[in-house]
Amino acid sequence: MNAGRGLPDVEIIAVGSELLTPSKVDTNSLWLTERLNALGLEVVRKSVVGDDRARLEAAIRAAFGQGKIILLTGGLGPTEDDVTREAAAAALGRSLSFRDEIVEWLEKRFARFGRKMADINKRQAYVIDGAEILPNPNGTAPGQWIEQDGIRIALMPGPPGELKPMFEAEISPRIQAGLEPAAIRTLVYRVVGIGESDLDQLIAPVYTKYSNPMTTILAAVNDIQIHLRARCPTAEDAEALVAEVGRKIEPLLGDRIYSRDGSPLEVIVGRMLHDRSATVAVAESCTGGMLGERITSVPGSSHYFAGGFLVYTNAMKTGLLGVDPDVLAKHTAVSDPVARAMADGARERTGSTYALSVTGIAGPEGGTEEMPVGTGFIGISGPNGTDARKFRWVGDRRRIRHAAVQSALDLLRRRMIF
Amino acid sequence: MNAGRGLPDVEIIAVGSELLTPSKVDTNSLWLTERLNALGLEVVRKSVVGDDRARLEAAIRAAFGQGKIILLTGGLGPTEDDVTREAAAAALGRSLSFRDEIVEWLEKRFARFGRKMADINKRQAYVIDGAEILPNPNGTAPGQWIEQDGIRIALMPGPPGELKPMFEAEISPRIQAGLEPAAIRTLVYRVVGIGESDLDQLIAPVYTKYSNPMTTILAAVNDIQIHLRARCPTAEDAEALVAEVGRKIEPLLGDRIYSRDGSPLEVIVGRMLHDRSATVAVAESCTGGMLGERITSVPGSSHYFAGGFLVYTNAMKTGLLGVDPDVLAKHTAVSDPVARAMADGARERTGSTYALSVTGIAGPEGGTEEMPVGTGFIGISGPNGTDARKFRWVGDRRRIRHAAVQSALDLLRRRMIF
Repeated sequence: MNAGRGLPDVEIIAVGSELLTPSKVDTNSLWLTERLNALGLEVVRKSVVGDDRARLEAAIRAAFGQGKIILLTGGLGPTEDDVTREAAAAALGRSLSFRDEIVEWLEKRFARFGRKMADINKRQAYVIDGAEILPNPNGTAPGQWIEQDGIRIALMPGPPGELKPMFEAEISPRIQAGLEPAAIRTLVYRVVGIGESDLDQLIAPVYTKYSNPMTTILAAVNDIQIHLRARCPTAEDAEALVAEVGRKIEPLLGDRIYSRDGSPLEVIVGRMLHDRSATVAVAESCTGGMLGERITSVPGSSHYFAGGFLVYTNAMKTGLLGVDPDVLAKHTAVSDPVARAMADGARERTGSTYALSVTGIAGPEGGTEEMPVGTGFIGISGPNGTDARKFRWVGDRRRIRHAAVQSALDLLRRRMIF
Repeated sequence: MNAGRGLPDVEIIAVGSELLTPSKVDTNSLWLTERLNALGLEVVRKSVVGDDRARLEAAIRAAFGQGKIILLTGGLGPTEDDVTREAAAAALGRSLSFRDEIVEWLEKRFARFGRKMADINKRQAYVIDGAEILPNPNGTAPGQWIEQDGIRIALMPGPPGELKPMFEAEISPRIQAGLEPAAIRTLVYRVVGIGESDLDQLIAPVYTKYSNPMTTILAAVNDIQIHLRARCPTAEDAEALVAEVGRKIEPLLGDRIYSRDGSPLEVIVGRMLHDRSATVAVAESCTGGMLGERITSVPGSSHYFAGGFLVYTNAMKTGLLGVDPDVLAKHTAVSDPVARAMADGARERTGSTYALSVTGIAGPEGGTEEMPVGTGFIGISGPNGTDARKFRWVGDRRRIRHAAVQSALDLLRRRMIF
């Protein structure tokens, strides 16, 4: 956390009842987080509060803390619903004053657009006593900046087109003025084929020894990101520090690390295919198109994607890919020989360098004692022959399909490394 | 707000440092908000707190309030970072106890997947004194439910595949048990083929006249949901009320309404195919598998999915589907005749009742003046002949591909209606 590194903690409070509905996301906080991280600062909490004066006042008070930076977004408009000014003033125990210079500026702004200002806009001329007024060239609500008892509070408008320029021009310089000069370097590993807790057990003995760089582990379905972020007086120091910790982590994970620049697996595999002037075809059973979709989500994938077959049933596996019905009858669709035959069939029919096949039981039905839901085979066919691997993926239908796609891409990656 | 309507306030706290990074959104709170709204409850605040015991404890304490329901998500995993159990216990002034029955259950779970449980998982066996243990059939972290001083707190795992079933099975019934008996009836329309602002202009004159039922509009890519939710003393009243408003909205949207029970388009189309004992095949260019993936995301889709072809390049369209190279040369791949030929080819080769084709420019490259990025054709082949429609989808590559899939499914739906 920031405090341990001698840096201020940042908290973001987004104001607006519409942000408490099921379909709206507070995207401002994502952008602000990115900008703050770039300054070496971390957001320790973010929240959304509706247009309710008392609740917002309580939320602001609860955020108070020595050295804290509190960024408020939204609720600065002209309507009764816009309560951020009043709530912040109350939390700080200060009054609001009406500022004629803001009314003048607003009237000029409306006149510039050939309109007369409605009286309601005068609400936006109230400023917390002692606050600096932050100009808003892109809207009608000025921002405010207050420092009190070691706490810094910014009031910013909610619309991103107003918030972002105001943050860059007014807030960021004020925050930086309070920071020791420092350089930040980030190293990102992406890892496939290991669970989160297993990975943590492997690398925790290394990263827990360091508070700088800070380590963050982000886990998705069969895909884990490890972020190392160092903050040092010079860029050389920061670089050396992340490299030092990286050198200790890499051997623990070996070739399960597939990316060192944050790129997802489909991009890495695409790059490897492109570099080798190779192509890949797919034959999908339980994933039903998800593998092809992942590969082709990358712009430019037409250079290396050789096509695909969605062969959900036995009849399709035979009809479209030429899988021998006797092999299907003898081994069932979810088996090593069928995965191989599917991959071979896709490779032959497209003339691709490689072909991947996926056959498995995605659930919720179809599992048996020996072959429970989540059992599957990935086949791979290529210049060095055909192979298949058995997997046991965990989760619901959606997760199993995602994990299977990730396993398939990884198998191709490994084939190309060795 | 809830209090004014005699209902408990709900606050959601998501736990996890990864949710404080610039790329992660707390999607659980969106889903929970939707489910809570369905019970007639509103969320008054939501926040994200990092994996920091002291901060989380403070956040939980700050959420305390008479009649409050506090939903915590995440931080129940096995690593040192997972601090929700400790923080909630501290906020409540209670102890944690180690429960052998949870360890036993965990060991069985790992054994079922053929793995030995790592010791670290024992952290998940700590339960707050007095809490009810909530089973988690989809993961290793059990949930917890505590009532104290008029406050109700739920601890739920962060992965959506674990959280959602647990909320439905364990949390929702406990919340409902504490509510005044009232009947809530929700009518959900799902609509395709119209933009959000056009739709709002059409129906706002109706729904703005009513505060009960409450209307919520949720817009996704080429897919809008309209929720009408009435809360009345009796079920008859609530039903009559949503029906009354529904009768006014339906004629304004006509056959753009594809669902009246919340089911997504792939489920509706799947049901229609099933009812007609019909099957569908797909031929995908720019969507690269996404259409097949959507169709097969529905359990049981093997009954009506006849297979698919991922034909990204001209060579594949010719080689795998028999599209005439002269037609490709004359009209280009993104054209009405090629969309038709792709659909016909897929239908012939699979023997399906229907076949859908998608060909378009998903971007970011490939656009021209007459055919900008987002231009595309959907082809459909069926017992009543072959047809194609031109579309202009809007957005980035991801949105264009999503919108195209939605358009394709809708074209099949319309073909089956008429």
